[in-house]
Amino acid sequence: MKDLHGGNIYKFQREGKNNILDYSSNINPLGVPKKFIDIAKESFDKLVNYPDPYYIELRKKIAEFNSLNMDNIIVGNGATEILFLYIRALKPKKVLILAPCFAEYARALKSVSAKTEYFELKESDNFYPNIINLKKEIENNNYDLLLFCNPNNPTGQFIKLEDIKEIVKTCENKNTRIFIDEAFIEFIENWKEKTVSLLKNRNVFIMRAFTKFFAIPGLRLGYGLGFDEEILKKMWEEKEPWTVNTFANLAGLIMLDDKEYIEKSEKWILEEKEFMYKELEKFQYIKAYKTESNFILIKLSNISSESLRKKMIERNILIRDASNFKFLDNHFVRFAIKDRKSNLKMLETLAEFVQ
Amino acid sequence: MKDLHGGNIYKFQREGKNNILDYSSNINPLGVPKKFIDIAKESFDKLVNYPDPYYIELRKKIAEFNSLNMDNIIVGNGATEILFLYIRALKPKKVLILAPCFAEYARALKSVSAKTEYFELKESDNFYPNIINLKKEIENNNYDLLLFCNPNNPTGQFIKLEDIKEIVKTCENKNTRIFIDEAFIEFIENWKEKTVSLLKNRNVFIMRAFTKFFAIPGLRLGYGLGFDEEILKKMWEEKEPWTVNTFANLAGLIMLDDKEYIEKSEKWILEEKEFMYKELEKFQYIKAYKTESNFILIKLSNISSESLRKKMIERNILIRDASNFKFLDNHFVRFAIKDRKSNLKMLETLAEFVQ
Repeated sequence: MKDLHGGNIYKFQREGKNNILDYSSNINPLGVPKKFIDIAKESFDKLVNYPDPYYIELRKKIAEFNSLNMDNIIVGNGATEILFLYIRALKPKKVLILAPCFAEYARALKSVSAKTEYFELKESDNFYPNIINLKKEIENNNYDLLLFCNPNNPTGQFIKLEDIKEIVKTCENKNTRIFIDEAFIEFIENWKEKTVSLLKNRNVFIMRAFTKFFAIPGLRLGYGLGFDEEILKKMWEEKEPWTVNTFANLAGLIMLDDKEYIEKSEKWILEEKEFMYKELEKFQYIKAYKTESNFILIKLSNISSESLRKKMIERNILIRDASNFKFLDNHFVRFAIKDRKSNLKMLETLAEFVQ
Repeated sequence: MKDLHGGNIYKFQREGKNNILDYSSNINPLGVPKKFIDIAKESFDKLVNYPDPYYIELRKKIAEFNSLNMDNIIVGNGATEILFLYIRALKPKKVLILAPCFAEYARALKSVSAKTEYFELKESDNFYPNIINLKKEIENNNYDLLLFCNPNNPTGQFIKLEDIKEIVKTCENKNTRIFIDEAFIEFIENWKEKTVSLLKNRNVFIMRAFTKFFAIPGLRLGYGLGFDEEILKKMWEEKEPWTVNTFANLAGLIMLDDKEYIEKSEKWILEEKEFMYKELEKFQYIKAYKTESNFILIKLSNISSESLRKKMIERNILIRDASNFKFLDNHFVRFAIKDRKSNLKMLETLAEFVQ
């Protein structure tokens, strides 16, 4: 395991930095939902039992939330386990990934020695995929799997369902499976009308997370939505037992019903992403890419990503140097979108270096 | 994933049975340590951060507890993750397992298509391995890996360190690696003088769990002790990030220092395993095998394991039908050893069927 991700505040804590404002991982600033905390505090005695290895109650709840059946659902230790299980179950030989993208895809594919090609999301297209070229690439090759993230991390772009429909059709003709990472979809306005799960397509598998929207990266809960019995069966066969802990299980049961938290979060992201984008646009030496999610990709022109990261961490703000994303370079950084107070502090600090 | 384990109380709960006394999973009846609960209750805000992917602080604590270095330690989502990581890292082709044993070994080995042979622990030897025959078996074959559990689940037998030393020597000559599951070792009297980790042998890898002794199967924390840099490096490469959740991490830090809980538990098991064995010996239609751990294997003569399990669950006591363990049959059941009050209730109920 290499240092491929944001959010590792620990090495700074070990250096004595204990009040880091973490802009490197994209977590809902409303924090851990209080309803869950109140119930979990009274549930420590439940830890003496193993979790239900089939997670029946949890899968029923997730199914209901997504208007699907329990059999469509598999749960995991964060979304990451879902990714690895799917890849181990499918064992694709040749894979196409839309990039820049999350680094764990490549690690999971490496574990089954898949040959991986990248379809570039171009800066000149604001990182939105060129659908015609993508369809051609799929038609002219024999990919076992197409893999992408929607909305995409780190670009913030969201592919419209009508475009995905076309991609799905092309993939069906070529017998190419599709894995879509929707770990950030709950930050999209009216996402339930825009998710690819509406298609219920047998070729499509969807990965989701509680991590970002419900602000529980420390608890580890993700899930997969699938419409192909065989793949799901293989994933269950590959699965190690009890990987979702009892508190994560409980979180899933409580949080999907926490309408107050969900509505408050939706209101926050709607306002705050507009605010951040507008403020960032004002800076002289950066270009901000319009985002539909809770993070924002920035291109720097007067300072390298590494230098900016170092300068910001000196001021106790941890940002994501995005130079190790495929097709990006040391001009790119990624910021989370947090609460207004933190965002103002971050913007003020940033201004010193890029204004 | 199949129904291979004890501890699945959920299917009974779904049938309305909510007060099940779980004798099928072997968990310390002292329950979740209170010191941990008190601190964890104030730590919910930590869930907004990802865990440290390298678990530095936790590994240091575990190293100290075992008089080893941090580099010898890898942590996992329960001991199960450690088992799967080791098997994926080593990719053994031919493996010898002492059996009857825990069913996940076979599942993990199946995931790398290893050829698996079983060395029988014989009832006539009280399930203690015949060391001479075992050494011959290793010498006369080319096993990549020898795998066993110590103390062994479900038999309760503990292999003496002097015997293990001989096995290790034989294995070294044959270039056979050794994986030892010590998930229950903390229940052995003076275990720190008896663990194979004292050998610090490069060929040996040890799996440990917090699950049983600290009564937290719902929290998911296990670890591995290794003395071969290369294998450990490969395991870290195979590892999915953040599989140990923030509360499990915290539990590890607190529980190893909880001397009061540890001493109380050691006192309990010493008394209670004697008590259970003596009481069970009194029954007419069963044979109890002397155990050194916190569970006890029983041979029935007037009722099948399945019938007894059904009769006991009707009385709200869940026991482990041990007939699906390799080399055992429908004469065998396994009971956990719990607190005196529960044990008396279990024994009283059992008496109705085997007296």
